[in-house]
Formats: sequence, C-alpha cells, structure tokens
Amino acid sequence: MDKNECCKTVVCEGCSALIVIDERRKFIVTLRRGKVLGSDRGVLRHDDVIGRPYGSWVKLSSGIYAVVLQPRLIDYIEKGFKRRSQVIYPKDHGIIIMLLDLKPGMRVLEIGVGSGFTTAVLARIVGPEGHVYSYEIRSDMADIARRNIEAVGLADRVTLRVRDARNGVDEKGLDAAVVDMPDPWAVLHVLEEALIPGAPVVFFLPAINQVQRLLGALELRGCWTETRVLEVLLREYEIRVDALRPRTTMIAHTGYLVFSRLALRRGT
Amino acid sequence: MDKNECCKTVVCEGCSALIVIDERRKFIVTLRRGKVLGSDRGVLRHDDVIGRPYGSWVKLSSGIYAVVLQPRLIDYIEKGFKRRSQVIYPKDHGIIIMLLDLKPGMRVLEIGVGSGFTTAVLARIVGPEGHVYSYEIRSDMADIARRNIEAVGLADRVTLRVRDARNGVDEKGLDAAVVDMPDPWAVLHVLEEALIPGAPVVFFLPAINQVQRLLGALELRGCWTETRVLEVLLREYEIRVDALRPRTTMIAHTGYLVFSRLALRRGT
Amino acid sequence: MDKNECCKTVVCEGCSALIVIDERRKFIVTLRRGKVLGSDRGVLRHDDVIGRPYGSWVKLSSGIYAVVLQPRLIDYIEKGFKRRSQVIYPKDHGIIIMLLDLKPGMRVLEIGVGSGFTTAVLARIVGPEGHVYSYEIRSDMADIARRNIEAVGLADRVTLRVRDARNGVDEKGLDAAVVDMPDPWAVLHVLEEALIPGAPVVFFLPAINQVQRLLGALELRGCWTETRVLEVLLREYEIRVDALRPRTTMIAHTGYLVFSRLALRRGT
Amino acid sequence: MDKNECCKTVVCEGCSALIVIDERRKFIVTLRRGKVLGSDRGVLRHDDVIGRPYGSWVKLSSGIYAVVLQPRLIDYIEKGFKRRSQVIYPKDHGIIIMLLDLKPGMRVLEIGVGSGFTTAVLARIVGPEGHVYSYEIRSDMADIARRNIEAVGLADRVTLRVRDARNGVDEKGLDAAVVDMPDPWAVLHVLEEALIPGAPVVFFLPAINQVQRLLGALELRGCWTETRVLEVLLREYEIRVDALRPRTTMIAHTGYLVFSRLALRRGT
Repeated sequence: MDKNECCKTVVCEGCSALIVIDERRKFIVTLRRGKVLGSDRGVLRHDDVIGRPYGSWVKLSSGIYAVVLQPRLIDYIEKGFKRRSQVIYPKDHGIIIMLLDLKPGMRVLEIGVGSGFTTAVLARIVGPEGHVYSYEIRSDMADIARRNIEAVGLADRVTLRVRDARNGVDEKGLDAAVVDMPDPWAVLHVLEEALIPGAPVVFFLPAINQVQRLLGALELRGCWTETRVLEVLLREYEIRVDALRPRTTMIAHTGYLVFSRLALRRGT
Repeated sequence: MDKNECCKTVVCEGCSALIVIDERRKFIVTLRRGKVLGSDRGVLRHDDVIGRPYGSWVKLSSGIYAVVLQPRLIDYIEKGFKRRSQVIYPKDHGIIIMLLDLKPGMRVLEIGVGSGFTTAVLARIVGPEGHVYSYEIRSDMADIARRNIEAVGLADRVTLRVRDARNGVDEKGLDAAVVDMPDPWAVLHVLEEALIPGAPVVFFLPAINQVQRLLGALELRGCWTETRVLEVLLREYEIRVDALRPRTTMIAHTGYLVFSRLALRRGT
Repeated sequence: MDKNECCKTVVCEGCSALIVIDERRKFIVTLRRGKVLGSDRGVLRHDDVIGRPYGSWVKLSSGIYAVVLQPRLIDYIEKGFKRRSQVIYPKDHGIIIMLLDLKPGMRVLEIGVGSGFTTAVLARIVGPEGHVYSYEIRSDMADIARRNIEAVGLADRVTLRVRDARNGVDEKGLDAAVVDMPDPWAVLHVLEEALIPGAPVVFFLPAINQVQRLLGALELRGCWTETRVLEVLLREYEIRVDALRPRTTMIAHTGYLVFSRLALRRGT
Repeated sequence: MDKNECCKTVVCEGCSALIVIDERRKFIVTLRRGKVLGSDRGVLRHDDVIGRPYGSWVKLSSGIYAVVLQPRLIDYIEKGFKRRSQVIYPKDHGIIIMLLDLKPGMRVLEIGVGSGFTTAVLARIVGPEGHVYSYEIRSDMADIARRNIEAVGLADRVTLRVRDARNGVDEKGLDAAVVDMPDPWAVLHVLEEALIPGAPVVFFLPAINQVQRLLGALELRGCWTETRVLEVLLREYEIRVDALRPRTTMIAHTGYLVFSRLALRRGT
C-alpha cells in the first residue's frame, strides 16, 4: 500500500482509530491483529477494521454498527489523553493559536506543561520545521505529558525540560510563548530574555486575582504592550430531531486568558 | 542584514508594521522611505521606523510615542483587511482550526470565501506544503479576498476560483472543508466527492433555521457522523488600573458552527 | 410575643427556618419542640432554635455552628421544594416578573403548573389582593405543586385547576399570563379570551423548534405584538479568599422565553 | 366610565400610553385632547386614541398603523425614563427581586438611587403597604429620580433623602436593601443598624476590584452570611421570518451582583 494512505485513508495495523459506537461510547484504539475492543454494546474485533478505509461502518458482535475515523488532535484532548488536574480546553486552544499568530516553522516557549494538551496543539501547528520548548516543574506531570505527546507522534518537535522556569530557560530568540502556571509574574524577566521583541504571549489563569496581579506586573516591567484579558465560552447544542436546544450544563469557566506582546524598553 | 531578520525582528523598507499609538489608534502600514503616517495624534515618518527592531518605541511629531510591532494575522483580521458584509471572527477561526484538525501540509476546501479572512487563516496554518482551494460565486467578493490574501503574502497557497461550487469542484481527496454560504445543503454531494472519508467539515451559519435545515440534510444523506452544533462567545475585559471589568457590549453572535465528518455509506 | 415578630424576626414553634451549616448543608425545617435535625456534621435540637432571633448562630452537637435564617422563596426553589421534571429557575422568574409588569393586586393566568415554583413566585408578588389561576393537565404534578404552594403559605391566592387549558379557562379579564407547556400555540385562542387587551404573556420553551412554531402561530393570529425571544444566563462565582473565579460549570440552558402582548385585531 | 377601567383597559385623557409604530419607533405619551405625537412615519392625534381600549390599532396621518398599549414599568426603564450615567437593567432587577425575596408590604432600604430605576422597581413590588427608603448623595441625581418615580405614580411609596448614607440612615427594622454606590464597604455598619437580622442585601458593582474589596469587608465584619457573587446575561434574538438568530451585539456587562444576608454576631 502507498505509505501515504496508511493511517490517513486506510486503517493499517498500528494505526490509531476513533471508534464511535454512539454519543457516549467513543474510543481511540491502536489497531493490533487478534485484539478486540470490548464495550457494553458488543465486541469489535480489530481484524474487522484493519485494511478498511477510514469512514467505514463496522459491525460489533451485537450487530450494532460503529464508525471508524481518523482521530483528530481534539479527539485525543476530549477523550484520549490521560489528564491530571485542570487542563486548557480546545475552546481556549483555538483563540491561543490566533492570538499567538501560530504557524509552521515557529519556535514556541511553553512554561507549565501540565498534561501536555497545549504542548500537543502547539507542536501540531508549528510543524516539523518548528519546535516547542516546554518547561514543567513537576516530573510526574512531565511524564504524563510526554506520554500524551508521544501518543500523537509529536515528540520530535518538543523539547520537554523538567525544571523551574523561574530560574531561566535555555533558549533565546523564540517567537511566542504560552504560560500556564500559578505565578506567571515570576517569569516575566525570563520571557523578556527568551523571546524576540514583539513576540506574543498568552498567560492562562483560573482566578481573577491572578489576572490582576499579572496586569500590575506587566505594567511595572515597562516593556509589555497590547495587553488584553479575555474569556472564551463555548456553547454546545443538543441535536434531537425537532428539538434543537443548548446543552443544559456547560463548562462556564476554565480560565482567563491574558495576552500581551513583548516590546523593547523605551529609550533602548 | 540577515535575510531572516528582515520583517521578522527588524523593520526594513517594504516590511509591514503594526503601529500602535493607543487603544483606538492602530495602523498597519507598509514602510516606504520618505513616506509619513498621519494621525490626529501627530505624524510618524517611516524613515524613523525603517531599520529599527520590532518592539521599538518611535516618536511622533507631537512627542507622543508609538510602538512598532510585527502585524499578526489577527491584527489584519481585526483592523487591516478590507471587508464587505459579515465575516467570520477570530473567536470562530480558533475553534475551526481545532475542529478541522488543521496542520501543515493539509489540503483544504473552502466554499464561500467572502472577504477572504478565513482563507488567510487556513492558508497560514497549512503552510507552504499545504493548499487551500477556495470557491466564491461573486467576483466582487473574490477580488476583495484576493487583495487581502496577497496583503499577507499567502497567495501562492491559495487557488481562488470564481465559480458556483454547487455545480461541483475540481479537486478530489481533500482533507477538510469550511463552508460559509447561505444554503450549504446544496453542496453536500460536492463535499462527498471532494473530501477523503473521515474528513472534518465546518459549516458557518448565521440563523438557526439554516442550522436546522442543514442538520436534516446531513442526516438524510446517510454518510455524515459526529455532527455538533456550537457557538463561541468571546468576552473581553476593560483594563483600567483598579477597575477590571468585562466590556459593556460584546459581539454576542456571529454565526452558529455546524461540525460534521464525512463517513462512507453503510454497506460500502 | 408580638404576633408580627413571630416567624419574621423571632423563630417560634411552627415557624420555618433555613439552617445553614455550610455551603453544602442547608436545610429548611419547620420547628417543633423535642425534634432534632440530623446531619453528618452533628445534630441540632429544635429547642435550641425556638425563641431565638433569626440571624442567630446555634451550636450543633459537634460544636460546629449553624446560622438560622428566614427561608426566602428562592431558598425553597433552590432547595426546599419537591420537584418533578424540569423547572423554571429563579434567573428566569426574575425577568418574567419584569416582563409581565407584575405587581400587587394583579390577576394572573398560569397554564402548565409543573412543580408549582412559578405559581409560588407569581402568588408572592400579586399579594393577598391579587390572584393566580393555574391550570395543570396532570393531577400528579398538580398534587406536588399544591404541596409546594401550601408549604410557603400561598394557597389562598392560588386557584389550581386540574384541567386541559386547551379546552378553555373559566376566567376573563385577567392581567397577564405565564404559559409553560410543550404546545403553547394550542392555547392562543384561550389567552385571547381570558386576558385584557394589552396583557403581557411569557411562554417558556426548552427547544428552539417550539419557539419557531410559536412565533409563526402568534403572527398568524394577527393580534399579538411586541414579541421578543430571549434567554437569561446566570453566572455564579466561586468565592475563595484570594481566588475569585466563575464556577466551572453552569446551567447554560433551561429554556427560551418568548414574550408577547395581546392586542386587538385591526379593524375592531 | 368605571374608574377601574380608566388607564387599565381604556385610554382616557391623562392616561399614559405606549405607542408602538415599529421596532424602532416606540413612545410613551400622556394623552391630552388636541395634542399630537409627531414622528418621521407620520403624525398621531391624541384625540384618535383617547376613549379607545388599550390594544387598539390607530392610524397615523401617513396611513401607517400604530398599536396603543399600557406602558409597563420595563417600558419606562427601557425607553421612557430620563437617565444619567450607568443604570441597573431589568435583567438585574429581576434577579434582585428574587434574591431580596421582595413582596407586598416590605420596607426596603436603597442606598445610591441614581436615576431611580431600581427605586421604581422596588416601590412597584412592595405595593401601597410597603415602603422604599432611598438615600442619594447627589441632589441632581435625586431630582431625576424623583421625576421618574413620579412619572410612574410611585412617589407616595418612596421617601427620597438627599444625604450621605455613610453617616447613617434614619430607619430601623427594614426588611432588605439594595446598595448601588462605589464604596459599599463604607455603609456595612449602617446596614447592620438599619436592617432586621437575616435581611437580604444586594450590592451592585461594575468592577471586579470593588467586588473583592466588598467580599473582604463582609468577612471582616463577622456578621454576614450566604454571600454570593453573580452576573446576569440577557441574550435577545432577532425575529425575522425564517431567520431566527441572537442579536449581533449584546450588553455583556452592567455590573456584578454581590448578595449577602445580615446575621447576628456569634455569641450575641
């Protein structure tokens, strides 16, 4: 088979697939001959999937059909990745991409990796010619992040350092940064050293008190501009025949996004 | 000068720059020796900017300082691009990128180009190895879009056809699609021909009636799955010292996003 | 004791009280000598509460303190009333009061009583000189509603009829109406008979399809004006010392409110 | 004519009427024989309205029809009242009514009257047996408020004092309070004197910094409980045939509502 088609249009052994039985039963699996996927709706034999094109409907032991799809990164984020504690959601990732002006070839700094969801998003967009330099103070979190990033095949674009970024980072001349830590004011001097002038930065902060303290610190430093504070709300609808309506509950808050751009100091 | 630094870290003649005088006075200009930027806050001579690093503060004739930054794509969208009629906003672009699993190298279909804002976003992320195939029925809109896409140097990644996509498109095997037209149900058969199975599609629709009609059509076709309807709300804050508060008014609705993935027909 | 103070400022035997141990342990109880309130935080003897002023702190068997407050109607709605199926929330009740121009002395029609929460709100505001005429098709719901309305002492202001309002109501010349039923278009002719011209009506509808059908029906009748469709979102904050933030999840949808006012037919 | 019908079902000389020509042309007028209402859509003679029932359609000089309705309090708030500076909106009034447990007969304290919109809402609900005691520091604001309150016939239920409430208020034993001033922490001791224990209070505050300072002050006083912070968002829809959609822009922020109830001090 054309190498290009494997895992892209055809499910091969070793490819990952998103198996959707119904709204509540979605699984990301790596296909292996002889293996099965069990569920309360029946069993799916991997052998029945391998070799078929993505988009195919496959029959479970119960006679119920499931559809087989290429897992997108957002599928991993919403249901495939391991997670610990609070994470940034795709609704926030999207606007972060826009705010950071993310594109192929960029070299991005990440401080505070958490479960690695954002790392994966950044690595995805910067492509094989770009790179993500990620700092995480907790080694247990870094381990989870590393596994998640490997699961989506992005490890070679990510340098993950288990270190306290408040003491400085190794890189210089980076294009943009995402900061997800409780005390981002403690790394402003580090960002000023590591980023090119004009570089956009997004800070992710759950509480308004953190936002206020960061705003004060940014102003004090005297070299940050275009500062914005925003929140993204994603409203999802229930789709029932003849009864379209917003979902009853929604994630109403993940965190505030503080955006700013590094400038030079006046007079420099 | 190192070619890499021109327009990236240093403002050269011919580079674009975002000149920020204050919150309400922001301009994207192409720098030309001998030219000036006029404003009610004073005049800026381009010669005072050329050769300086991005992030610099430059003095206007009035003595007021402006900061010079690299214009991001979102800056063009928010204030640089020409626009006609309603446009998709960055808040929506962000989640579209996530939903479409956009990444370098992808080949994306766009039906309904409008002012070309979304075209530029797509072209930005798919990079030089990817491509965007865009169809627009109105030639006047296509002209505006073309100018906008050229302004951000993305023309070589975009094939813009002035044609009614309801009659079919030229491409096959494309990876994803964005559809922004009043009657997207009229192109479902076209998408089914042009996209690879499993391909994600986002439809942008201002009115709920359109959403309902599209949902009905998607179901009837029998080969669409993972359908979602969502809205993104962006809440921006006023940043005043000791008085942080959400902005009084907000863009509360641009359009609904309908997401779906192309599957094969059962039994195929 | 001054009769006026009983149940208003002083907790007497037979009065109701809201006992707040902490954020998650709130109870509405009717005080009886010799009785106790049990909780996993300790036991409260009613005798320790009776005779004390509202606002008092009383000690549980565990040594923990609880505060004793007058239960507001919103406390009953949020935690005291029995409920079956979906209910209208205080966020909606508030705007309903404003839209209906509710005030003491008004005579209000209610079609679709459900658990009686809205009935209680209406009865509360119209006062002893006003009246609420409520129609409920299901006798089991009416029983729950009746018990809730009695629990807050409003039964004498409410006439609750277990009947299908689609076949007409007994009253004429009423001032306003709330309609909470799946097919409100089936009672428009009834409202037109029962209400004074100009009377405001609020329809509560969970799904957008119902809203659309109602809008069509209102227009067709030719005697409704000032129609509005709206939704109320209530965003609540977590209050932690030095960490103020919106609650992670929120009730993002209860229902749409359709407002309209009855006019005469043109030419009448 | 039956006195009861005048201004309620029949438009008499001296009654107020809401004249609705279309969505953008709505007027609240006091009817006077011989007078006219001019608009760019034609002229309406008051004589053509007087004596007709509310809900009637009346012809303008242009042949266009307008509908005549009883003005609700919300109509005055949305378009009839004079206003100065920022006001509390009906979306907030609604939840304030619910939070304060407002009902006929209550005696309510208001600190910070502004344009008197909230005063009118409170006076409306407490009825002729209740009363609103309002304190406003600025005499120019008090004048506007007084005129607005008189316009809706509620002056006899309102005692409006032009005085700095931080120095104390005259009343004792009041049932609830609304506080709309920039430094509400300066009147907590006043509220503690003027309200009955258990009384609910709503504070209206535009900026989050004020919320934080108030939360700190409430905690420090040691006699406030059940504190909540919330925001109300009202989303309104455009109603077009076959094109239902939320309005493009919305009032996304008026102010935060801080709710709390006065308790006794422990040990009292």
